[in-house]
Amino acid sequence: MTVALASVGSAVDAIDTPTLVIDLDAMERNVAALAAYARAHRVALRPHAKTHKSAEIARRQVEAGAVGICVQKVSEAEALAAGGVRDIFISNEVVSPAKLARLARLAGRVRLAVAVDSALGVERLAAALRDEGTRVDVFVEVDVGQGRCGVAPAAAGALAHQVIAHGLTFAGLQAYHGRAQHLRSPDERDAAIRHAVAAVRVAQASITSAGMRCPLVTGAGSGTFVHEAASGVYGELQCGSAIFMDADYARNQPTPGAPRFEHALFVKSQVISRGAAHAVVDAGHKAHAIDSGLPTVHRRDLTFANGGDEHGILTGRALPELGETVWLIPGHCDPTVNLHDAYVVVRGGLERGVVEAIWPVDARGCTS
Amino acid sequence: MTVALASVGSAVDAIDTPTLVIDLDAMERNVAALAAYARAHRVALRPHAKTHKSAEIARRQVEAGAVGICVQKVSEAEALAAGGVRDIFISNEVVSPAKLARLARLAGRVRLAVAVDSALGVERLAAALRDEGTRVDVFVEVDVGQGRCGVAPAAAGALAHQVIAHGLTFAGLQAYHGRAQHLRSPDERDAAIRHAVAAVRVAQASITSAGMRCPLVTGAGSGTFVHEAASGVYGELQCGSAIFMDADYARNQPTPGAPRFEHALFVKSQVISRGAAHAVVDAGHKAHAIDSGLPTVHRRDLTFANGGDEHGILTGRALPELGETVWLIPGHCDPTVNLHDAYVVVRGGLERGVVEAIWPVDARGCTS
Repeated sequence: MTVALASVGSAVDAIDTPTLVIDLDAMERNVAALAAYARAHRVALRPHAKTHKSAEIARRQVEAGAVGICVQKVSEAEALAAGGVRDIFISNEVVSPAKLARLARLAGRVRLAVAVDSALGVERLAAALRDEGTRVDVFVEVDVGQGRCGVAPAAAGALAHQVIAHGLTFAGLQAYHGRAQHLRSPDERDAAIRHAVAAVRVAQASITSAGMRCPLVTGAGSGTFVHEAASGVYGELQCGSAIFMDADYARNQPTPGAPRFEHALFVKSQVISRGAAHAVVDAGHKAHAIDSGLPTVHRRDLTFANGGDEHGILTGRALPELGETVWLIPGHCDPTVNLHDAYVVVRGGLERGVVEAIWPVDARGCTS
Repeated sequence: MTVALASVGSAVDAIDTPTLVIDLDAMERNVAALAAYARAHRVALRPHAKTHKSAEIARRQVEAGAVGICVQKVSEAEALAAGGVRDIFISNEVVSPAKLARLARLAGRVRLAVAVDSALGVERLAAALRDEGTRVDVFVEVDVGQGRCGVAPAAAGALAHQVIAHGLTFAGLQAYHGRAQHLRSPDERDAAIRHAVAAVRVAQASITSAGMRCPLVTGAGSGTFVHEAASGVYGELQCGSAIFMDADYARNQPTPGAPRFEHALFVKSQVISRGAAHAVVDAGHKAHAIDSGLPTVHRRDLTFANGGDEHGILTGRALPELGETVWLIPGHCDPTVNLHDAYVVVRGGLERGVVEAIWPVDARGCTS
């Protein structure tokens, strides 16, 4: 990062563009609302830090009641452990011996868990842990409808048996249904999670019929967690995006009984060119990810169109003038955060707030 | 970057995943082919470094005959100047006084140029340069069909006049047609650039009729440069992507007479999960940008489907096994490069090559 984005104590106006800005009041309300929901429904909360990639935010989530955090990659776990996070679940498969050696080393410093979905993965994990003399919790991932990683539900018992046969700690099932999160109606999401719950029950039965017990089922995301919490089978929720609420999650029709989360993450941009019927801001693909759609504009009367890597094109009534600030709501927060080196953290709102802190995105670029 | 991606001298097999890998032999052929084309057609070459964001690569382009490079942001110019690049055109508008102050300072260290498309932009640029006591070349940007930044062609003379009236150096016209680059047929691209050339002629006429001369017209991209080079009005080509040739450019039908560029940039990924009819690799939105489509697979019998931030889903005959390497060709190189901290540079091909160097992506994340 060659440029200072902002100074602590300065006004929002002085923040450089394009910059990733947290509305801290809104984020704190989101963290508290999710923690309260999990407490009230007697499920553990282990938010996915792939959303924010920040040790500072992870620590705040744990202070609010989370049992730990999830990540997807060994390098994310390393980055957040270096930032003081002590309980991390890598909710993904790791099969490279070099990565497993790093994982085994990290397990000597923090409480660590990982997912497996293959005999080869179990074997290599066991070898790496043996070499390092460390232990991790091992979750068998079950494909509950996503069609990505995970064994078939009926095969969970056999893989759990291999985990135990290798002297590893079988900790339960990883059962996340990613595609269900963005189904638009609560009924569709409910149906998808019913399917996931049925798959989990099959997996649990295959474990108990093999004479083992399944200590925990972990999963759920910000679009569906009400359903997993109500299922009676999930003991831990992994909702990540609720902390920031991106534009795509806001397109879901609300789930009855779910807390209302607020947009808490923005890209501050600036108009650098004005046409008669459009304005151009200085934020394109390098400032926000578009895999779940383009950003929306905080000023709802403006529409954002794709302007390439460095530009966005705004249309609407009362177009902003040259040099004016325009606040964008990312389509998808997780990969948007991954584009930025730091958060500028604002207290007191986007209009008249003050920069309270600058937090590094500790796990930015941690793909390995 | 917390993890070493590879060691110089090691075999390709030992490169971590997911990692951005340059096939150096292919890249060198692309650099040489574009430089030879520009020489043969007597136009200057100023490749866009927004593609590669690397001072090392920029220096190689200049050694091959380029007059300098383009960038889009002040922070990119700062990062590449710090890496030894001496002649930089910021082919974009800068209107923030804080950014203009940085630009004016940088102009004391390297030869710098910038685009303008507003009277306010000219005024603020002049003020910043006066404060710093430095000079830059100023190009008036003309909208030649992109519908993004730039003045209307007939308004170029009036803005050029303002540039001169503020005591600045009017260096010519920035006339890039971004949307034309990805029109699929050469006829469509030819028609779009005919339109751009007509717009440039109108802009030139508005300049000469106001009693000024237009020293240079600069523009063109990897999809259309044959047409700009043949136009008789463009004196400088800005082609960036030709150096790497992404999957989307490869979907263009070739232009008769254009050099053939090779894919020279890859994401090395690894299979981390295997289903009966699909394989999952460890490279998703955090490893490659999808704004111009998903990556393609180097093994052409495999198809890549979106698997989210960290995964890609492969289908096809003869699926790769767990742990196997899969080479991906990014849909769009520029924002893909922006996701990575470094290039692993391979000599001798993807199969049996050796790591020759690791180059930092100097301007990664330089959005400001």
